[in-house]
Amino acid sequence: MAVPNVNIVALSPYPLINKGDDLVAITLAALAAQKLVLRDGDILVYAQKVISKSEGRKVSLASIRPGNGAIELSKQVEKDPRLVELILSESQEVVRAVPNVLIVRHRLGYVLANAGIDASNVDECIDDQYVLLLPENPDRSALNIRKGLSRATGCRLAVVVNDSFGRAWRMGTVGTAIGSAGLATVIDMRGTVDLFGRQLQSTDIGFADEISAAASMVQGQAGEGTPVVLVRGLAWAESSDDATALVRPRNMDLFP
Amino acid sequence: MAVPNVNIVALSPYPLINKGDDLVAITLAALAAQKLVLRDGDILVYAQKVISKSEGRKVSLASIRPGNGAIELSKQVEKDPRLVELILSESQEVVRAVPNVLIVRHRLGYVLANAGIDASNVDECIDDQYVLLLPENPDRSALNIRKGLSRATGCRLAVVVNDSFGRAWRMGTVGTAIGSAGLATVIDMRGTVDLFGRQLQSTDIGFADEISAAASMVQGQAGEGTPVVLVRGLAWAESSDDATALVRPRNMDLFP
Repeated sequence: MAVPNVNIVALSPYPLINKGDDLVAITLAALAAQKLVLRDGDILVYAQKVISKSEGRKVSLASIRPGNGAIELSKQVEKDPRLVELILSESQEVVRAVPNVLIVRHRLGYVLANAGIDASNVDECIDDQYVLLLPENPDRSALNIRKGLSRATGCRLAVVVNDSFGRAWRMGTVGTAIGSAGLATVIDMRGTVDLFGRQLQSTDIGFADEISAAASMVQGQAGEGTPVVLVRGLAWAESSDDATALVRPRNMDLFP
Repeated sequence: MAVPNVNIVALSPYPLINKGDDLVAITLAALAAQKLVLRDGDILVYAQKVISKSEGRKVSLASIRPGNGAIELSKQVEKDPRLVELILSESQEVVRAVPNVLIVRHRLGYVLANAGIDASNVDECIDDQYVLLLPENPDRSALNIRKGLSRATGCRLAVVVNDSFGRAWRMGTVGTAIGSAGLATVIDMRGTVDLFGRQLQSTDIGFADEISAAASMVQGQAGEGTPVVLVRGLAWAESSDDATALVRPRNMDLFP
């Protein structure tokens, strides 16, 4: 078997994205400028922000009128009540609320801070008046980009959309998948044998989350402007999985 | 600035490790066999199991006499009472206990299932009679390997020890750092400016966890026997950080 050897390359430069921009065409142009030609097996990882921007998910806080629930909660978490209103509108429920921290279950199931709404790297954001919501449906976004890239190149590709998530019990954020198309996002290892031929009892690998974290290493540093990353050389299984497969069903949740 | 371009290469073949084996010498031999020469900036990521094996952390379940607490708990979690005794002996406290799931706070602070004790890929493990504990002090293990590799090569290196952790709210495990030497494991982004020059409010990156997840993509698949991975080309800051910096202090823990 070939030695596993994976390359993670940022597409750089990658232009600033505005509403309506065609991410497929922009990605192909960025690849071409870098003399990269897509191959079968390539994975493109997109930071959530470029997807959200292209889909027009920028919201002016001035347009938001907070309700009483948001006003009450905003005192508890010491955040702008208009932002809290937006967070609640994107959420199923509040998971934890303490000063400076508002952790929710996003309408798509993800447990994360502020429903993933962010004020950094949003242009025209004078005095933080504009914020950016997560894409409406990041799995659909991934699927559409995958279709577009595959159509243009004829290659067997996968597309992952990642965001930076905080974790219970751990410091710091890590890149985590909120959208995916093409690959098995969770790898079920049950029935696989270990080095000594014994069956593994219970190991699922959060594969698309590992890919997201790996991409985040190079997207990472906020000022760098490299939101799109090519992951090349990684073996993956084709699947209709999406990123919701990575969300633990609530009836299996030990940390409500 | 150079385009971020990171290479993740499994050392393959990597031999099966026994107690007392010199991981520095074995790693250098594996690199040489692959015609890889270490360079400044290289990061070596070790799966916990090879460290534990070399340090003789294999325990025979037959040698364990479970106490009453372990016997009681074993009924609740439906696990071998001797294994539960070992898990408790490696833990500060039980975080969650339900059938088939025992999540604890390890004595080193990590919140994980079964205190990281594993029965897979342990040889002589007929009928699962042997299990493998986490290294006694994975940060110290990382430091020692780093010293040895640096001494042999003269290079500025970092070493990370990873293990597969489950997560709250998410399906599947991801590679997570339990030991680290040489690099800043948590990157504090406060004060950094975004693309539009505004200061980021609060973003710490769990950098060594992202590195661990990235390495896990290629170590991953249990039967493959590639526990050691070279990460090349990633920019990192030299630091005396260790992996305990990634453990959220209990007074900041929202999910006890």
